[in-house]
Amino acid sequence: MSQSDKGKVKTTVEIYNRSYTIVGNEDDRHVREVAGRVDGTMRGIIENNPRLDTAKLAVLTAVNTMSDYIKLKKDYDELMSYIQKLEKEAGD
Amino acid sequence: MSQSDKGKVKTTVEIYNRSYTIVGNEDDRHVREVAGRVDGTMRGIIENNPRLDTAKLAVLTAVNTMSDYIKLKKDYDELMSYIQKLEKEAGD
Repeated sequence: MSQSDKGKVKTTVEIYNRSYTIVGNEDDRHVREVAGRVDGTMRGIIENNPRLDTAKLAVLTAVNTMSDYIKLKKDYDELMSYIQKLEKEAGD
Repeated sequence: MSQSDKGKVKTTVEIYNRSYTIVGNEDDRHVREVAGRVDGTMRGIIENNPRLDTAKLAVLTAVNTMSDYIKLKKDYDELMSYIQKLEKEAGD
C-alpha cells in the first residue's frame, strides 16, 4: 500500500467477469452496491446489443449512468431552489 | 432506422477516440454533454493509471459515475424529505 493509500479502503469486486480493486474513501458496502449496479447495467445493455465488445459496452454503461446523473443533478438543483424559496417564505 | 427507432433522436459522438451513435429520447445537446463528461472522466482516470486497458478504464469510469449517482440520489431523497417537512409545517 503506497503512502497515499493510508487510511483508504480497498475493496475487490467483480464486474462483468473481471476483478477490480477499488481504492477510495467509500465504505465497502457502497463500493459493492456501485459494482453490482454497474454489472447489472452492462448485462442489460449487452442483452439488447449482443455484438458489442467489452470496451464499447463499458463506455455505453458509463454514458447511461452519466446521463442519469446529469438529469438527477438538474432535478436536485431545482429542489434546492425550491427549498430556498420555501425557507424565504417561512422567514417572511 | 427500425420501427422502434421512430421519433427517437440519433446522435453520433466521439468518446475516447471511438465513435458512438446514441439512439434515444434525449436531445442532441444532452447527449453531447454526457459524451464530453464520459470522455473527460476516462482521460482523468488514465492519467493516474496509464497501464489500464480501454475496457477496464471504461468500467472504472462507469464505477466512478455510478458512485456519484448513488451519493447524489441519497442527497436528493434527503432534500425531498426535508421539503415534505417544510410543506407540512407551512400547512399547519
